[in-house]
Amino acid sequence: MKSVDELINERMFSKYAPLIPELTSHLINAGGKRLRPLLTLASAKLCGYDGLHHISLATVVEFIHTATLLHDDVIDDSLKRRGRPTANKMWDNKSSVLVGDFLFARSFQLMVETGSLEILSSLSNASAEISESEVLQMSLAQNLSTSISQYMQVIRGKTAILFASACEVGALVAKAERSQTEALRLYGEALGVSFQMVDDFLDYSGNQTNLGKNTGDDFREKKITLPIIFSLQNNNEKNQKFWRRTLAKGEQEIEDFEGAQKILISDGSLEKTRVEAIRWSNAAKEQLNFLPNDQFKNYLNDLTDYVVARIN
Amino acid sequence: MKSVDELINERMFSKYAPLIPELTSHLINAGGKRLRPLLTLASAKLCGYDGLHHISLATVVEFIHTATLLHDDVIDDSLKRRGRPTANKMWDNKSSVLVGDFLFARSFQLMVETGSLEILSSLSNASAEISESEVLQMSLAQNLSTSISQYMQVIRGKTAILFASACEVGALVAKAERSQTEALRLYGEALGVSFQMVDDFLDYSGNQTNLGKNTGDDFREKKITLPIIFSLQNNNEKNQKFWRRTLAKGEQEIEDFEGAQKILISDGSLEKTRVEAIRWSNAAKEQLNFLPNDQFKNYLNDLTDYVVARIN
Repeated sequence: MKSVDELINERMFSKYAPLIPELTSHLINAGGKRLRPLLTLASAKLCGYDGLHHISLATVVEFIHTATLLHDDVIDDSLKRRGRPTANKMWDNKSSVLVGDFLFARSFQLMVETGSLEILSSLSNASAEISESEVLQMSLAQNLSTSISQYMQVIRGKTAILFASACEVGALVAKAERSQTEALRLYGEALGVSFQMVDDFLDYSGNQTNLGKNTGDDFREKKITLPIIFSLQNNNEKNQKFWRRTLAKGEQEIEDFEGAQKILISDGSLEKTRVEAIRWSNAAKEQLNFLPNDQFKNYLNDLTDYVVARIN
Repeated sequence: MKSVDELINERMFSKYAPLIPELTSHLINAGGKRLRPLLTLASAKLCGYDGLHHISLATVVEFIHTATLLHDDVIDDSLKRRGRPTANKMWDNKSSVLVGDFLFARSFQLMVETGSLEILSSLSNASAEISESEVLQMSLAQNLSTSISQYMQVIRGKTAILFASACEVGALVAKAERSQTEALRLYGEALGVSFQMVDDFLDYSGNQTNLGKNTGDDFREKKITLPIIFSLQNNNEKNQKFWRRTLAKGEQEIEDFEGAQKILISDGSLEKTRVEAIRWSNAAKEQLNFLPNDQFKNYLNDLTDYVVARIN
């Protein structure tokens, strides 16, 4: 990871535009968990890789992730990210859009340097699906008839596919067997689904300390996440009326977020979300059975526990 | 171009997000000049290519261009583009950011399909430089000490490099000789510089009919374009004071745009810009001398005339 950090700092550099490393390092050095690059490094090592391209690929994955964060914050008009003011608040929306574009382009330059079309294919497919899913998520906001399958489509695309690709490209660079590559991809996907469900859980139950962003963002943005879908399935007339007013119509009073939290705790929707997140983290671990026993496999196993530790 | 149009319509499609083709076709079918994809097609044919990948590459180039337009309109908060309301006004900034991201990712998917790392390298370098140059342009706004060399850096990066790459990848896909590839790249670059100078000229002299966007955009956004740099070099105290107030301080009254136009006409700055644009279009034509005589070479020659015809 030290080499990845060095490469991140080296390749965020721009000859003409000092604002680019300034804004990028504000976000990247804010102490994010670096989960995605860790997946790439561990996957490559688990498949016996002993070259250096995995460091570039881990950097690529973190750049793509950072680019989507920068654009998300413009889109959601967020105030905080990783416990610090978001870039769009410290600089402006323009800078966030352009620096996101730059990081995205830079990540493709780095990929080209690794010389593998399979890797380029995996990560360009992931990138296209990320933006498609964000558009889908946007179009489903305030829509109380959002199904679980639509929700799954959104989180697979906006979160899980990059986890999946982060693992897959680690295996690809190591020229792993097809079955191992596939197991790692499915491991990453299930882990990503679990990760996003934990996030959606914490948005209603967390406090600023353990989340590093504003609790209540999803509610304010009227996103129909898993806890809300579970609550709507309960057919409690009073609660349904509450969701219709606050989410479908978007008429929110200052005390409504607390009201939303109370409903989701009392009707069991948050607990159901927690159970579902753990189910997916177990599904991730099962994929590891297809891989050789090794310190890096243990590491991925621990990482899976770490993701759900926030809600246990 | 008919095949390119078909591929554009086919590949803007999204399984989950109907908003993507809707918004993209609003912009793409608004009757843009399709200059960049034409460059790719003509370059490939001029180098004797008889495969089909040039159609994908022309689509790639138009997608990258469209993505940058969508993001530019968010950045500049523009009202009109190609004579129609901009996407960010008809939908919202969120959609423009995300659909731009999607088109950018899609263009990389298409490039991967052509299987050439040289092509991926050319277009990913161009993409990184486009966003770097837009950041540079943003940081130079309102800065009256902007030099001609800084201005050239901005327009080479934000406009000319994609023209250059559009030509270069046409040559690369045709496996042209190194010297022809280089001549076509330099042709595209000079044409792009000329094209942007014409645009900067028209922003002060055009009317809505021949420009398809709002005349006066650059003035309102306090961009220091070539006509302004020439005017500042004249050391006319009264005019300098006008630029300091309206551009450096950004204190603009409703009648100031007309005042700006009058200054740039009377002190010869617009005429100097026109001469410079024509000088670059001639430089583009000179590069064509290094290429075999052919109907496609004549076509590129005519295209060069077409670019400056708007100011002749």
